[in-house]
Amino acid sequence: MAFHSDNTLGCSPEILEAVARAAAGSAPSYGFDPVTARLRERVRELFAHDALEIFPVLTGTAGNALAIAAMTPPWGAVFCSGEAHIHRDELGAPEFFSGGAKVIPIDLARLAEAIDEIGSGGRTAIPACLSLTNATESGTVYTPDALRELCAVANARGMRVHLDGARFANAVASCGASPAELSWRAGVDILVFGGTKNGALAAELIVVFDPSLARELALRWHRGGHRLSKMRFLSAQLEAYLADDLWLRNARRANAAALRLAQGLGALMEIVRPVEANVVFARVPPHLRALFAEAGYDWPLFGDDVYRLVTGFSTTDAEIDAFLAAAAR
Amino acid sequence: MAFHSDNTLGCSPEILEAVARAAAGSAPSYGFDPVTARLRERVRELFAHDALEIFPVLTGTAGNALAIAAMTPPWGAVFCSGEAHIHRDELGAPEFFSGGAKVIPIDLARLAEAIDEIGSGGRTAIPACLSLTNATESGTVYTPDALRELCAVANARGMRVHLDGARFANAVASCGASPAELSWRAGVDILVFGGTKNGALAAELIVVFDPSLARELALRWHRGGHRLSKMRFLSAQLEAYLADDLWLRNARRANAAALRLAQGLGALMEIVRPVEANVVFARVPPHLRALFAEAGYDWPLFGDDVYRLVTGFSTTDAEIDAFLAAAAR
Amino acid sequence: MAFHSDNTLGCSPEILEAVARAAAGSAPSYGFDPVTARLRERVRELFAHDALEIFPVLTGTAGNALAIAAMTPPWGAVFCSGEAHIHRDELGAPEFFSGGAKVIPIDLARLAEAIDEIGSGGRTAIPACLSLTNATESGTVYTPDALRELCAVANARGMRVHLDGARFANAVASCGASPAELSWRAGVDILVFGGTKNGALAAELIVVFDPSLARELALRWHRGGHRLSKMRFLSAQLEAYLADDLWLRNARRANAAALRLAQGLGALMEIVRPVEANVVFARVPPHLRALFAEAGYDWPLFGDDVYRLVTGFSTTDAEIDAFLAAAAR
Amino acid sequence: MAFHSDNTLGCSPEILEAVARAAAGSAPSYGFDPVTARLRERVRELFAHDALEIFPVLTGTAGNALAIAAMTPPWGAVFCSGEAHIHRDELGAPEFFSGGAKVIPIDLARLAEAIDEIGSGGRTAIPACLSLTNATESGTVYTPDALRELCAVANARGMRVHLDGARFANAVASCGASPAELSWRAGVDILVFGGTKNGALAAELIVVFDPSLARELALRWHRGGHRLSKMRFLSAQLEAYLADDLWLRNARRANAAALRLAQGLGALMEIVRPVEANVVFARVPPHLRALFAEAGYDWPLFGDDVYRLVTGFSTTDAEIDAFLAAAAR
Repeated sequence: MAFHSDNTLGCSPEILEAVARAAAGSAPSYGFDPVTARLRERVRELFAHDALEIFPVLTGTAGNALAIAAMTPPWGAVFCSGEAHIHRDELGAPEFFSGGAKVIPIDLARLAEAIDEIGSGGRTAIPACLSLTNATESGTVYTPDALRELCAVANARGMRVHLDGARFANAVASCGASPAELSWRAGVDILVFGGTKNGALAAELIVVFDPSLARELALRWHRGGHRLSKMRFLSAQLEAYLADDLWLRNARRANAAALRLAQGLGALMEIVRPVEANVVFARVPPHLRALFAEAGYDWPLFGDDVYRLVTGFSTTDAEIDAFLAAAAR
Repeated sequence: MAFHSDNTLGCSPEILEAVARAAAGSAPSYGFDPVTARLRERVRELFAHDALEIFPVLTGTAGNALAIAAMTPPWGAVFCSGEAHIHRDELGAPEFFSGGAKVIPIDLARLAEAIDEIGSGGRTAIPACLSLTNATESGTVYTPDALRELCAVANARGMRVHLDGARFANAVASCGASPAELSWRAGVDILVFGGTKNGALAAELIVVFDPSLARELALRWHRGGHRLSKMRFLSAQLEAYLADDLWLRNARRANAAALRLAQGLGALMEIVRPVEANVVFARVPPHLRALFAEAGYDWPLFGDDVYRLVTGFSTTDAEIDAFLAAAAR
Repeated sequence: MAFHSDNTLGCSPEILEAVARAAAGSAPSYGFDPVTARLRERVRELFAHDALEIFPVLTGTAGNALAIAAMTPPWGAVFCSGEAHIHRDELGAPEFFSGGAKVIPIDLARLAEAIDEIGSGGRTAIPACLSLTNATESGTVYTPDALRELCAVANARGMRVHLDGARFANAVASCGASPAELSWRAGVDILVFGGTKNGALAAELIVVFDPSLARELALRWHRGGHRLSKMRFLSAQLEAYLADDLWLRNARRANAAALRLAQGLGALMEIVRPVEANVVFARVPPHLRALFAEAGYDWPLFGDDVYRLVTGFSTTDAEIDAFLAAAAR
Repeated sequence: MAFHSDNTLGCSPEILEAVARAAAGSAPSYGFDPVTARLRERVRELFAHDALEIFPVLTGTAGNALAIAAMTPPWGAVFCSGEAHIHRDELGAPEFFSGGAKVIPIDLARLAEAIDEIGSGGRTAIPACLSLTNATESGTVYTPDALRELCAVANARGMRVHLDGARFANAVASCGASPAELSWRAGVDILVFGGTKNGALAAELIVVFDPSLARELALRWHRGGHRLSKMRFLSAQLEAYLADDLWLRNARRANAAALRLAQGLGALMEIVRPVEANVVFARVPPHLRALFAEAGYDWPLFGDDVYRLVTGFSTTDAEIDAFLAAAAR
């Protein structure tokens, strides 16, 4: 399973230990426990935002769909990249949770035109939400400036902004900006901060920067079956994730591994996109495809020869070097 | 938090250990891992049903709503007890997942009449699903015969049956019937087999006995954000839960604790319902309400004096005796 | 089809003529035509309310469901009488248009308790809307005072009020109050003012008294497929309906016919509910059921012997007398 | 309003007369009346299909959305042209009625690739429905062969086909094929046969060629508020529309008017698309835009100079000639 995806990996030991600790004794259910309270304070401090509200969930799909639904009426339009997970990989979760909104994949370089085209007639859908991903599905990273520019286009049209942060840690680790700079200070209303791909068992955190969105989101969260009764086991994962910079250390290691992998593969094949986070896109020459198949790649991600390789918090240099050596043979 | 609910408790050590074991190495994501495969086989064996399909989820609300939606069209009616969790405690999750079905709380003793009343005109809703709970929210247990009788009323009218098994283990432990007798052999189409309230971190299992319902359920599961990428951490909990009868041992302990508690309290107040599982309903006299408030009971469950006390897999005799001693003072 | 329902009847000649007049020439579509503009002014005058907004629709089900959805979130509760059309006869239209709200049939005499019971736990549904019918499905009429009292219970709990006015004209004709007194002045937020049962071809008017609800309702109206492109043919019906008190004259005639029918039948059988509008409920003795079957009554409305008879704008004394004579034989 | 749209026009006298005739006496409601029964037989004969089922509705949006929802699960994908009314002009009606399906605008020349791209991963949406329009929104007409080819691509992938026939009459009049050849014989499962734009007051007919789709559609029709109680007033319009080839005569006149208009305008400006039905797309030179503004064109349909002109069943040569004369000045 080497480099197949960051969701095939295990779990940071600190997170397992936190879950075990939380298992002792009893605690109020549904999020009224002390672990969740501590987590809320920690997230407020990390994002330098006293009024944000948090909703722990188990999957990125749940986090994204709940966040988008909280900002998009049933007749609203959600704009996103054509590669966005919310469009390509969630079987219509945003459509379901919003009650039938339109998810419209576009070229984000043409964002303003795309919004205005949909919005002008008033009979297609009402532009409501911009959904971005950072680090992107392409393995690139928005800087605070790039993010702010896109958010400004949306905000100027009365729209809200959702940030899919399945690899938010990798983005922070990559560009060195603060969590606040890469979220609410750039114009993001709701961030889904990923833990699962970066060392948690299964834990994502919906971070709501505009408190006026929180009450409705809480109701959707419960009604969607995404509010755990034994919440502390989820909050404990996230508390450990954010303690002692574990999230950043894990992401830095994954990013460094991707660079090492890209440099090694670069001698053998074309690396087709900039490697700014933990994802590498490589154009695999025919004689190496058997090796990739063996490593669990059933098919290329696009075209007939471009494969996606993903490193993670637990990827070792030895794994990389072994794969590169096999490829070089 | 003594006896406040079975979802305030911790986790069986065997389950924590299984999660830790599953964290080693990597595994295919989204349920294609070996732990989930083993779990499927184990469940088939336990229920003596070769063709059943399983969908692990994190909450009972998710399990119930997905199961009901798979059997109920948007214009369908779901009949349940007036105390059913799906009606009272899920903020409309079945309505949401089904696309607007009607959940109709009734007196189950009048099931046939209630169905026929709704169904006759053909303009209220189309009777589609009977939703039962075992052990019930009242702390009583359906025997296989009682269950079969209710299912037969529904089946005779072309309806499907959902069983909310948040406390299925307690029901099996209580009446001694086999899992098969208390589910598909009695006429249940989909069971949501609870783990969370009985020793898991957070784990429920949708068990689909009619394979023709499985494909659509798989799509709803993904689209609802309830399909974990790192599924093995959920499946590992359930595998450990079903190994060496842990689920039954935990439930027997909880049931025994409830009996001990009820016998002790019975000397001081009226126990208003039969205690057949792990839930006790007691009419608390005025002079003892301060004690209950202290123990975390914010208000009575019904009337102004009937409180619900719940025991769990980790309840100790010492806890019970201490509570009884305090009450007796 | 004598007295089977008021929707089996034809159409007032004035309304047909208005449609024919509107067919001349061309006009802007989608409600931007002069007929609709005149209708809006006429309705504002009739209800003594300068800021109300109107949305013509073709069916009462559409009007009710759109109105309720505009005031009820997907997790909201709608309270209504157990006989309400929205609950019994619309195949879940309010649930569909609202995205899964709970329609909760109750005894309106216990309104406050019912709301508080649902609302207290916060996990069943959020009380959002009270839906009343006037004249009621039982053929009785709320006076302004009775209506105000019910609305006040809802308003005091932050809820909105919908009035199903399929027989609003009959209610106004019956109790002599003004349209304003029987709607917004009593606390109604949205009225669905019926024309179909009282002489129109097919025309109902959503009257929104709180302008803050209008924009979203306009979007739902379009999206639901209920906004006619050739709107003027619908608005023309309603304009003629409201001109020269046609609506009131028709309703007075229907109400008078119901009284005459009830007085005649009363000599032969029990009239089981007060006859305040155009609906009569009669307990038909066995020897007269063949006569009713012949007249198109396939089954009693409730029990096994209570039939509903409905008069309309075109019911004649001769029809009534012929029916009474047949019954007396 | 000359040439602004075919929904700004009036109504054929034959249709008004039929409505007036239907107003006499009383008739069973909800579609059980004799007019609707006769209409069903007439449609079966016209389409040479004994088992088809019909559902009269008031708007094309309702017809399209109901038809698509009957063939598309909530997680399904609907493919259509980028200019399709269902995508651009219905505020998400298909998404609403289907419970959140994805409407995916594509270049129909690349239909097979587009379906396979969405379908291959299995995580975007399940390809379920192809939605075509004939005559198209571009004013062109599919021949039976062209239609059959597109349907075959969909059918080969297990998908259903919806045909938006708002201008179906214009397509039949244009290419001379039979109604059957332009619908079910080419592979169409459900046609929405338009009357509104072609001489009716407001009447569209959902024609279901696969009877297995009819029962569910009937329930959606009622629940959507689209089933008239006084159905005969809608059915009477459609009966008159199909009698004595009124539908074809009206469409032929509209098509001929479009040709005359296009020929005249062609001397003054570029006609940018083939004129095969009753719609003309003209690139209006700057000095003529004031004339268009005066005629009610608020803005060009695309680009900054291409306007859409539509003729109708009642367009006269005099109107065309007057417009051309004004333009020539």
